[in-house]
Amino acid sequence: MRATVIHGPNDVRVEEVPDAAVREPGDAVVRTVLACICGSDLWAYRGVAKRTPGQRIGHEFLGVVEEVGADVTSVRVGDLVVAPFVWSDGTCEFCREGLHTSCPRGGFWGTPGSDGGQGEAVRVPYADGTLVRLPAEAAGDERLLTALLALSDVMATGHHAALAARVRPGATVAVVGDGAVGLCGVLAARRLGAERIVALGRHPARTDIARRFGATDVVAQRGEAAVEAVRELTGGHGAHAVLEAVGTEESMRTAISIARDGGAVGYVGVPHGGSAGVDVQQMFNRNVTLAGGVAPARAYLPELLADVLAGVIDPSPVFDRSVPLDGVPEGYRAMDERTALKVRVTF
Amino acid sequence: MRATVIHGPNDVRVEEVPDAAVREPGDAVVRTVLACICGSDLWAYRGVAKRTPGQRIGHEFLGVVEEVGADVTSVRVGDLVVAPFVWSDGTCEFCREGLHTSCPRGGFWGTPGSDGGQGEAVRVPYADGTLVRLPAEAAGDERLLTALLALSDVMATGHHAALAARVRPGATVAVVGDGAVGLCGVLAARRLGAERIVALGRHPARTDIARRFGATDVVAQRGEAAVEAVRELTGGHGAHAVLEAVGTEESMRTAISIARDGGAVGYVGVPHGGSAGVDVQQMFNRNVTLAGGVAPARAYLPELLADVLAGVIDPSPVFDRSVPLDGVPEGYRAMDERTALKVRVTF
Repeated sequence: MRATVIHGPNDVRVEEVPDAAVREPGDAVVRTVLACICGSDLWAYRGVAKRTPGQRIGHEFLGVVEEVGADVTSVRVGDLVVAPFVWSDGTCEFCREGLHTSCPRGGFWGTPGSDGGQGEAVRVPYADGTLVRLPAEAAGDERLLTALLALSDVMATGHHAALAARVRPGATVAVVGDGAVGLCGVLAARRLGAERIVALGRHPARTDIARRFGATDVVAQRGEAAVEAVRELTGGHGAHAVLEAVGTEESMRTAISIARDGGAVGYVGVPHGGSAGVDVQQMFNRNVTLAGGVAPARAYLPELLADVLAGVIDPSPVFDRSVPLDGVPEGYRAMDERTALKVRVTF
Repeated sequence: MRATVIHGPNDVRVEEVPDAAVREPGDAVVRTVLACICGSDLWAYRGVAKRTPGQRIGHEFLGVVEEVGADVTSVRVGDLVVAPFVWSDGTCEFCREGLHTSCPRGGFWGTPGSDGGQGEAVRVPYADGTLVRLPAEAAGDERLLTALLALSDVMATGHHAALAARVRPGATVAVVGDGAVGLCGVLAARRLGAERIVALGRHPARTDIARRFGATDVVAQRGEAAVEAVRELTGGHGAHAVLEAVGTEESMRTAISIARDGGAVGYVGVPHGGSAGVDVQQMFNRNVTLAGGVAPARAYLPELLADVLAGVIDPSPVFDRSVPLDGVPEGYRAMDERTALKVRVTF
């Protein structure tokens, strides 16, 4: 089969690789229908996050079950399914608590020895714990399928940020980052009943989506000027809940600074700024909570899926370009150069 | 009147200062009955926290109301009262939410222009918002008075750490720091229903109090060895709730490392290690929350007071030495040299 392989910084290639196959009785093989490129893939693409040359890449996909191991009971050949960006056994104490990302048997797509999402098929370990069935009718609805693809990571991650930031009905929320996760954070905050949502971003194409997703205000400034602008919009106090969806030192510093005293920052941007942006003295003086991390997408899939199917949320607008599998390298370039927000891969 | 004045590192003196007096209609003057020295006073004593030479010091006291301004309605001359370590107006939106430490009119005892707690009397701004009446009968009960003195800061701060760490009935809790706040954190965790409480500390006199307060295990190791020991005690997973009551880089690093995935660190040690100990990558990977800060003692006073009066909690054992006002400099030396845990000042 063909799949995307990362050989080094700025070097992803679509190559012939061994076919995905059932190896363990709990495995399933999923033939990919839709996949996509994640902002976090760019950390690897740019060489900031280290990868072993030859590793697969991609961790968001939905598709059709092609083969199942002897122990698999929850999905059958032919089922349309979506995978969260981490596989997990579904039975350990962490999975039972909804923290599937801490499953001791869990893992990330694309780690050495495993398939990545940006390929024609994927071996799915612990298929019963990992995969979520989608209605068969969705297969014919491209807009809906695209929205469902977002549940694999970005929408679930935006939701995680909103929960970590303690978004509640009536809350004033600020979202740092106008990438796909930040935008999904806006959508998640609105879904949780936020009254006011300030989106920080400077790309009109993105902030337009933010407004469509529920942002009531947009702040284009950065750094200190952004902090001042958010404080001005919030009676001097800052936002009850701040979603941090970038992961740099500056974005973390901004996020903490625009949180209201007693508020919380929900951070889901993979931290690449170390702790330098975490101003603990400021957090201490103002009782600002820092929560979040890698989103247990599997835990959120059922409720988010229900809301996508019911038309309550539609994250599909975060995808603004499509490429076929062979176009994946071009998709990375486009996202790296910021000419695309989020690239969908069709099969 | 006589009060404690800090002139520089290792230089606190008891001196003649202007009498405390009502200046604003909302003020009260409280004649001190009991005060004490706080671990956080040591940061100033050691010169780590800067003070203007000549500032007053001390922020924990209880006493008898001696004079009230025209607008004061909640306390009367002769009332026995306790003050939290921050004054606050009691009417602003933060006070109404229970975050009195963010009251825009609030302030810390001992800041330039204000009286400190380690003196014969204290002018209390916003007396209605700040002071809490104690039963008159307590005046004759030294053990009870001493327990009530702890509500001014250490017990309230330990409770804040426990809440920030999300201690719940049945939780496994770890407490980093065997100072008075850490010990009160143990007591607070037990009060909130923790099932298992691991106290980290190496001074037997202190860990004995921890056991008396409800610690089920004591870990004497530090750093990596402490992390291993706590993980061993908790089935490899760490504690649901970790109370950080020191404020150094090492203590923060330990606290985050011993938190269970998905757990929370409640930190109340005034951070003096910057953010270096805040390992955001580890927090991110394991979804560990960092919460806490300066404790809104005023918010917790009513419920903690009720439990002290009912005999549910008795934090008085954290005081292991008493000095008269003139003995305050000796009290600082004893706490600095760790020959005393917490020094009470009698008047």
